[in-house]
Amino acid sequence: MPQLILIRHGQSQWNLENRFTGWWDVDVTEKGAAEAWAAGELMKAKGIAPDTCFTSVQSRAIKTLNLALEAMGRLWLPVTKDWRLNERHYGGLTGLDKAETAAKHGDDQVKIWRRSFDIPPPPLEAGSPWDLSSDPRYAGIDIPAAESLKDTIERVLPYYESAIVPQLTAGKTVLISAHGNSLRALVKHLSGISDADITSLEIPTGQPIVYELNDDLNARERYYLSER
Amino acid sequence: MPQLILIRHGQSQWNLENRFTGWWDVDVTEKGAAEAWAAGELMKAKGIAPDTCFTSVQSRAIKTLNLALEAMGRLWLPVTKDWRLNERHYGGLTGLDKAETAAKHGDDQVKIWRRSFDIPPPPLEAGSPWDLSSDPRYAGIDIPAAESLKDTIERVLPYYESAIVPQLTAGKTVLISAHGNSLRALVKHLSGISDADITSLEIPTGQPIVYELNDDLNARERYYLSER
Repeated sequence: MPQLILIRHGQSQWNLENRFTGWWDVDVTEKGAAEAWAAGELMKAKGIAPDTCFTSVQSRAIKTLNLALEAMGRLWLPVTKDWRLNERHYGGLTGLDKAETAAKHGDDQVKIWRRSFDIPPPPLEAGSPWDLSSDPRYAGIDIPAAESLKDTIERVLPYYESAIVPQLTAGKTVLISAHGNSLRALVKHLSGISDADITSLEIPTGQPIVYELNDDLNARERYYLSER
Repeated sequence: MPQLILIRHGQSQWNLENRFTGWWDVDVTEKGAAEAWAAGELMKAKGIAPDTCFTSVQSRAIKTLNLALEAMGRLWLPVTKDWRLNERHYGGLTGLDKAETAAKHGDDQVKIWRRSFDIPPPPLEAGSPWDLSSDPRYAGIDIPAAESLKDTIERVLPYYESAIVPQLTAGKTVLISAHGNSLRALVKHLSGISDADITSLEIPTGQPIVYELNDDLNARERYYLSER
């Protein structure tokens, strides 16, 4: 039966500082790197043996994957990197910490943005230091100005269907290293979670989530590997 | 004009111990990791901007690539891993250090194996601790019992032609992280080095070698990046 393992990148510097990160390419902390390594050791100990891997084009997810693969003795696995597995783009909130966001926009508005399914944050301002339009990794890609969770899902799921589903259908065990919101998109789809509930589903960093799938790729079971 | 950059993995534990390594999956040393990082910093400083990368399925080459890409801020690049870029398979010499090899086979024979173009070393013995037949990374691959440099070239060059040439022809800058002998295969081909001369061409660890190519992929120039 196909098996899909999801892992959110280990703690990043901006997770630690509680700043909106989105597409900004923030590194993992030492703690985050240790989480990634431990995730790899856990997968190895539990006999998880991925055949192929997917990740975003963001360093924190790629490094998490590389560290986990090294800890598993599986650095040699194929890895496909695609921007459609990136974190939700937080637009004009990028770089702001909790206090700055509240001061600028008010607590109530922040709660709406954090918790709404389809209301995007304000767009990135012109001249923002977090502008990525000259980043070569996004050459030829229409970088969003800001994304709601719904927007994020609308690019993650078509990628899942076109690139990842064929691997699962072929019987491969697939490991995906990605981000809070790109993984929410997959969990919502696979576990049938409502629009209202998915925004509050927290995905912990560095914890492998295993999906045991049926041949039609519906979820038979979802669990944290650390709990088995 | 197309540009091809070759890098031999940073020092491995068995480079340090002067043991025949071949396909055995030996890690880089701390010095080797530092060489890889420095190679990435050098490429960045010199404005080398690869579009895509190739490496073997051996950890020392993959880690060298990952470290160099991180140092360049280019972890997001596509990386293709293929066993045909592996080191030469040293067969029955695998694991032996200089003294052990000389004691077992005699100095003269060792010189022949080290320096001959087309005489392979003895095959791996049955029950050898260095047997890779159950390694999942080689599932479905006909693992050689031992390879001459000629044998190595005969798997590297078809892979170069089928997988790497199309990238160069499309105008991409390509970075290859590989091994002493798989890189000799490429240098022999690109620089037109004779069978007799290629066996003594030493490729230093962690030193990016740049090929500036013509549109027909003949070499206009080959240089160590550190010398520019």
